[in-house]
Amino acid sequence: MFGLMQDWPLLLHRIIDHAATFHGPRKVITRSVEGPIVETDYRAIRARALLVAQRLERDGIAPGDRVATLAWNTWRHLEAWYGITGIGAVYHTVNPRLFPEQIVWIVNHAEDRVMMADLTFVPLLEKIADKLPTIERYIILTDAAHMPATSLKNAVAYEDWIAEADGDFTWRSFDENTAAGMCYTSGTTGHPKGVLYSHRSNVLHAFMAALPDSKNLKSSDVCMPVVPMFHANGWSLAFSTPMVGATLVLPGAKMDGASIYELLDTYKVSFTAAVPTVWLMLLQDLEKTGGKLPYLRRVVIGGSACPRAMTQKFEDIYGVEVVHAWGMTEMSPLGSLCTMKPEYAGLTGEARLDVQMKQGHPPFGVEMKITDDAGRDLPWDGKTFGRLKVRGPAVARSYYKGEGGEVFEPGGWFDTGDVATMDPCGYMQITDRAKDVIKSGGEWISTIDLENLAVGHPKVAEAAVIGVAHPKWDERPLLVIVLKKGETATKDDLLAFMQGRCASWWMPDDVVFVDEIPHTATGKIQKIELRKRFAGYVLPGVGV
Amino acid sequence: MFGLMQDWPLLLHRIIDHAATFHGPRKVITRSVEGPIVETDYRAIRARALLVAQRLERDGIAPGDRVATLAWNTWRHLEAWYGITGIGAVYHTVNPRLFPEQIVWIVNHAEDRVMMADLTFVPLLEKIADKLPTIERYIILTDAAHMPATSLKNAVAYEDWIAEADGDFTWRSFDENTAAGMCYTSGTTGHPKGVLYSHRSNVLHAFMAALPDSKNLKSSDVCMPVVPMFHANGWSLAFSTPMVGATLVLPGAKMDGASIYELLDTYKVSFTAAVPTVWLMLLQDLEKTGGKLPYLRRVVIGGSACPRAMTQKFEDIYGVEVVHAWGMTEMSPLGSLCTMKPEYAGLTGEARLDVQMKQGHPPFGVEMKITDDAGRDLPWDGKTFGRLKVRGPAVARSYYKGEGGEVFEPGGWFDTGDVATMDPCGYMQITDRAKDVIKSGGEWISTIDLENLAVGHPKVAEAAVIGVAHPKWDERPLLVIVLKKGETATKDDLLAFMQGRCASWWMPDDVVFVDEIPHTATGKIQKIELRKRFAGYVLPGVGV
Repeated sequence: MFGLMQDWPLLLHRIIDHAATFHGPRKVITRSVEGPIVETDYRAIRARALLVAQRLERDGIAPGDRVATLAWNTWRHLEAWYGITGIGAVYHTVNPRLFPEQIVWIVNHAEDRVMMADLTFVPLLEKIADKLPTIERYIILTDAAHMPATSLKNAVAYEDWIAEADGDFTWRSFDENTAAGMCYTSGTTGHPKGVLYSHRSNVLHAFMAALPDSKNLKSSDVCMPVVPMFHANGWSLAFSTPMVGATLVLPGAKMDGASIYELLDTYKVSFTAAVPTVWLMLLQDLEKTGGKLPYLRRVVIGGSACPRAMTQKFEDIYGVEVVHAWGMTEMSPLGSLCTMKPEYAGLTGEARLDVQMKQGHPPFGVEMKITDDAGRDLPWDGKTFGRLKVRGPAVARSYYKGEGGEVFEPGGWFDTGDVATMDPCGYMQITDRAKDVIKSGGEWISTIDLENLAVGHPKVAEAAVIGVAHPKWDERPLLVIVLKKGETATKDDLLAFMQGRCASWWMPDDVVFVDEIPHTATGKIQKIELRKRFAGYVLPGVGV
Repeated sequence: MFGLMQDWPLLLHRIIDHAATFHGPRKVITRSVEGPIVETDYRAIRARALLVAQRLERDGIAPGDRVATLAWNTWRHLEAWYGITGIGAVYHTVNPRLFPEQIVWIVNHAEDRVMMADLTFVPLLEKIADKLPTIERYIILTDAAHMPATSLKNAVAYEDWIAEADGDFTWRSFDENTAAGMCYTSGTTGHPKGVLYSHRSNVLHAFMAALPDSKNLKSSDVCMPVVPMFHANGWSLAFSTPMVGATLVLPGAKMDGASIYELLDTYKVSFTAAVPTVWLMLLQDLEKTGGKLPYLRRVVIGGSACPRAMTQKFEDIYGVEVVHAWGMTEMSPLGSLCTMKPEYAGLTGEARLDVQMKQGHPPFGVEMKITDDAGRDLPWDGKTFGRLKVRGPAVARSYYKGEGGEVFEPGGWFDTGDVATMDPCGYMQITDRAKDVIKSGGEWISTIDLENLAVGHPKVAEAAVIGVAHPKWDERPLLVIVLKKGETATKDDLLAFMQGRCASWWMPDDVVFVDEIPHTATGKIQKIELRKRFAGYVLPGVGV
């Protein structure tokens, strides 16, 4: 027997409708790519999103078609998302930080029909346009006054393009499982993999993200998503912020410390979110200028592990609550947030920081477990680490076109590829990537823990740990070190420093000194390259 | 094209699974019906809910079957809801405050197969059991030691009954639109009407209810739902509280001021919710004892309009934020909450109270509009009032067995039967019931506004206003007055008092003095009876 409740599909345009109706005059403030600050509001965003929708249909864009965006966080990009999804088409955010050949590959794989791009990216697109045969039209997110002369096919200024629509248009109706958005993961191996969000997954995820123990978003907040919309579905802020009617401040293309500070201060931003690199720049700027953060209440830090010193500075010096978060493109992206449960709420100082170094606990809607390689559940003791697996309505079940390998297990669990601990209070902490963890005699050694330990040595600039084949233990750790300029150190120096700071069986079997460690485009250590380089390495005490 | 996200239906048992997994040791504290305080936690609640589920299946209860509960807010009642819904059966909360013949009608209409009842209600059930042929078994929510001798069919103590299960059981899987709960509205006319909630509607509604601008529930809260679970789906607290992992304090059968205060103080309750009557008793008790409310942060007041003086006392004397709320059984029940948007956040004193007298704004997931009788939208100016209509995934689309009249309009709007204003900031305020509002020359007059005005007269004990037929204006207001004991007053006294305090065309055409005004079982004025009584009334100046 079914319930007798209304059939009200979870569609994204309902979010902007709600914002326009109940929070219509709330501001959306952008540092435009052209330069000046532009202020608009949710009512206008909705009205112009309807123009986008109507105009896309007139260009023949149909449900399911992909519309690429290569754009910073601006009000036009926000309108574009709602306009695209409002006709059942799919926004495909392209990360401009990828190598041009990766962008070409992704756009061709997605078979995008339209490209909406910021002024910033016109030169890049002109270089690769002849390799993008599926793109029928380039819409440059600017007005006629700023429109450059360009060779791009059917190029038009966004403002001119939407001016051709009259807004006499209603959102299209469709199933809530209809595809809404697409984002490719930048895998370290193989081709990028396309994650395809639905209206339902985005709406449910926005609920999860806005809850008090998640981002705690409300209409009186002034919310600045520094994390770009092209980074892991923009951390849901394009949905969760209008859902609650909070003021939105969008930083456009300028994400240096001084520019971010100016927005934080001028618009009294109460909530913001970005990767650690951005906050490092901000904190350096504040130290230089003596600036304060009197309005900022909460900062969400994710994308990579948040350094302890960063959390400490935000909280102790600036009085800003830090929420360490973790997620993945495949999870829409929110997985967990390190907000304080009552068991930890009373902690202060180092004990509180210890908890804040964890990636936190999931909201309702994300299931989580850790298992060994055989898929057996592991204990939640804060020490045992295993493969982190997740399940939920905003977690991917497969990749676009069925490509990208088998990470989806029976029972619907998605193997995150991360290795983590769970503590007795249900807080998760990432220990390593599954492909990097060293399996020594059936036990696992975290390369990240060893690297963090080694970089604590005053002469070390960078450290990487990889597993090297061992006849008895299968694998044993090899420590690869780049010394600071002009410094010298020996293997014994390093090992003596680490001795007693980790389990004795975790101690690296050998240390090698190199000039440089290879990195990916996004600055991560390329362990796959390192492992290739040391593939034949013979550890001390191992007969050839 | 569909998205590629996991199929993860919104099922209620996922809420208690989440609470048990990530908030397992968080307490659930009950003042038991037997007397003592009983403490348990979410982990145990889930484990015992599984016993309920297993045991119900063994008794032959199948998906879609209705299981009645006639019970106070206790941990056993909570377990029962999750156990019942975990096999796809339907909890049917019966309001013990109804007249026995109404309970008989409702249980028979629902065709309940099992009755779970508190000790308190055994005598009542024994009196009506022979009129409840569909009930196969009575489960008394107590243990063997407290089990009374009873004639009830197959009666068993809940603790003995679940002890027969071993808990080796998994929740059943089914579509998220499966019926989960049922609650009858106590209509003032005709038979009660059955509202049938689904798993999906309850889960989505719990998200809406927990948001920061709604109830703002988090794991560090200590939440006491004084509103009974049998009142309008228990205001979602049985779902939204475990969803966020907040501590739960359940008051059982004792809802007098002193008992409520004892729980608030002993367990440091931070959030609570109930109808104004409960808070009137609490405030009277506090005035008598000099008690304070140092832990209480927020109180949600709904069910009927919250008096201005009550809001003022809570905020000014006790430092407790009052959130005026409105909903309906047909809305799961949340419709709107009067939390402060930035436009109103800076108000203080009387200006703030003016806003707090409004019923507030809806969360995402509730659409709202006001229309005239022809269905045309009316302006949101805070003055114009019209029929309040709502839409959303947790709003009913029809009543059980298709009975209960036509309130569902084209476009899916549910006519609430209320008349309301909407202000420019999107705050709704109830003005009257649609069937009570007086239509005079095409314009509407609020009977509630006139009644509130009349009871301000020092000699008036109670006032009711009804529309009486008028040859020129269709209807004109008649003021019906019960004077305080020993007082005397004339029609002119009353009219002189009201003159200048309302629009001149709102002024009652006549005043009659009566000894008593008829009331419903729940204490509301029975206007239908009054209208019958004055059906032939001839207003002054109207020729016969």
